[in-house]
Amino acid sequence: MGYRHPFPLRWNDNDQYGHMNNTVYYEAMDTAVNTWLIRHGGLDPAGDVIGLARASSCEFLAPASFPEELEVDVAVGRLGRTSITWDLAILRAGAPDRSEAYATGAFTHVFVDQVGRRPVPVPEAIRAAVERHLPLPPTA
Amino acid sequence: MGYRHPFPLRWNDNDQYGHMNNTVYYEAMDTAVNTWLIRHGGLDPAGDVIGLARASSCEFLAPASFPEELEVDVAVGRLGRTSITWDLAILRAGAPDRSEAYATGAFTHVFVDQVGRRPVPVPEAIRAAVERHLPLPPTA
Amino acid sequence: MGYRHPFPLRWNDNDQYGHMNNTVYYEAMDTAVNTWLIRHGGLDPAGDVIGLARASSCEFLAPASFPEELEVDVAVGRLGRTSITWDLAILRAGAPDRSEAYATGAFTHVFVDQVGRRPVPVPEAIRAAVERHLPLPPTA
Amino acid sequence: MGYRHPFPLRWNDNDQYGHMNNTVYYEAMDTAVNTWLIRHGGLDPAGDVIGLARASSCEFLAPASFPEELEVDVAVGRLGRTSITWDLAILRAGAPDRSEAYATGAFTHVFVDQVGRRPVPVPEAIRAAVERHLPLPPTA
Repeated sequence: MGYRHPFPLRWNDNDQYGHMNNTVYYEAMDTAVNTWLIRHGGLDPAGDVIGLARASSCEFLAPASFPEELEVDVAVGRLGRTSITWDLAILRAGAPDRSEAYATGAFTHVFVDQVGRRPVPVPEAIRAAVERHLPLPPTA
Repeated sequence: MGYRHPFPLRWNDNDQYGHMNNTVYYEAMDTAVNTWLIRHGGLDPAGDVIGLARASSCEFLAPASFPEELEVDVAVGRLGRTSITWDLAILRAGAPDRSEAYATGAFTHVFVDQVGRRPVPVPEAIRAAVERHLPLPPTA
Repeated sequence: MGYRHPFPLRWNDNDQYGHMNNTVYYEAMDTAVNTWLIRHGGLDPAGDVIGLARASSCEFLAPASFPEELEVDVAVGRLGRTSITWDLAILRAGAPDRSEAYATGAFTHVFVDQVGRRPVPVPEAIRAAVERHLPLPPTA
Repeated sequence: MGYRHPFPLRWNDNDQYGHMNNTVYYEAMDTAVNTWLIRHGGLDPAGDVIGLARASSCEFLAPASFPEELEVDVAVGRLGRTSITWDLAILRAGAPDRSEAYATGAFTHVFVDQVGRRPVPVPEAIRAAVERHLPLPPTA
């Protein structure tokens, strides 16, 4: 259970301090979640309902650097009525767990209709895929 | 008092949803703060002491889109011994204040020595520039 | 006559060699041309006819580096029936001419219908704007 | 013989026309070549001799789109005394050959000393690796 998205670095991901720039961690989170939504939740980016970023955050714990191969570990922090908050970690490829994560982060998608961009319920296919495939937080 | 950093958008900042991608807001914050540090605080990115990102976050309030011209409003949320947390907003160029911000965010820099990358006190020139030029939060 | 597009650099434009990464020159060219097309040629990126990149090239002459402010000088190399080849240079902001360009490049747009993406004639508004506002090469 | 570098796309690689932006092809070429140089030619980006981009070009043949997985096919167009011109193609992952390439391109590196940035001969380890592992053009 769970999902790991491979995320190899690119030459231009390193900034002038010689390590992966902080903005690239967000590219990793955005890419991992959207790929999972497309492949497992039936998201069609050209379809009627899409997920827009409402908030995101990241804590940087250790430096990564091209040409490393990274992975994004995808879990769910909160499954709401119209939004999902993803619970994410950036890891060395093949790392056994989050204990040595390069970074941990959160990313909140609100689902909207593509035209009017007003919130709509999380599509059933996505809700079902989340419940079947991803770690959810313990209910309080 | 305060600092506004101009941030014109680029063609490739828009993603397939036709608006500025969420990761670009972080490029805006990172660029505004580092430019200010170089021009007003004497930061030399090739020098002995540099500022590394420890954490960042952003709340997305309204969509922006190329070819808009944006501005980043830079204030200080917390001036610590070895770190500064910036209090930022992304605005339409020329917006009078933050009331219609496209996004608000935070960005924490920890200052380290370039070689060993261990925390060091915020350089005096930067501390003095912050106190002289930027809005600080009211002391509790 | 002619068009200069301001292009301030971003922190993450510098790669680990401490200068503007080669891919950013293409962001500059793409951005300058599309902004001109939108503002002067009536291009609507969500409209019926759009311009797609068919080819591009760049020669890198001298290094640029954040926090420099650059400009893209836009001219026309060839105005064809369904395509335009732009003749571009990346300059220090305010540079009098191309004699000290950081880079020179070319960028060929082919105009297509948005849905089928088949070549169509250069829209009249764009052709007229090019002929009125931009330097064209001498006819052979 | 030859080298294929995997290049999965990222969410933000797609621009508002819904396909991989033209600048990302250059990220792919730059990343493939530098990874090969580091892993097979002994290039140390923090070492004495580095390779800087002198020129690049790309012809865009067919659109690619996130979440595709691409590959860069790396060959050598010209092995000079102080420079190498790479002969590159962007392919669908697993494509048998270049017949259906999304794009073909060239990228010229000139080797320089890191400090003075003056041309130096192609390092022996790189020259040997090129001759052993990569397809070279037929001698005229």
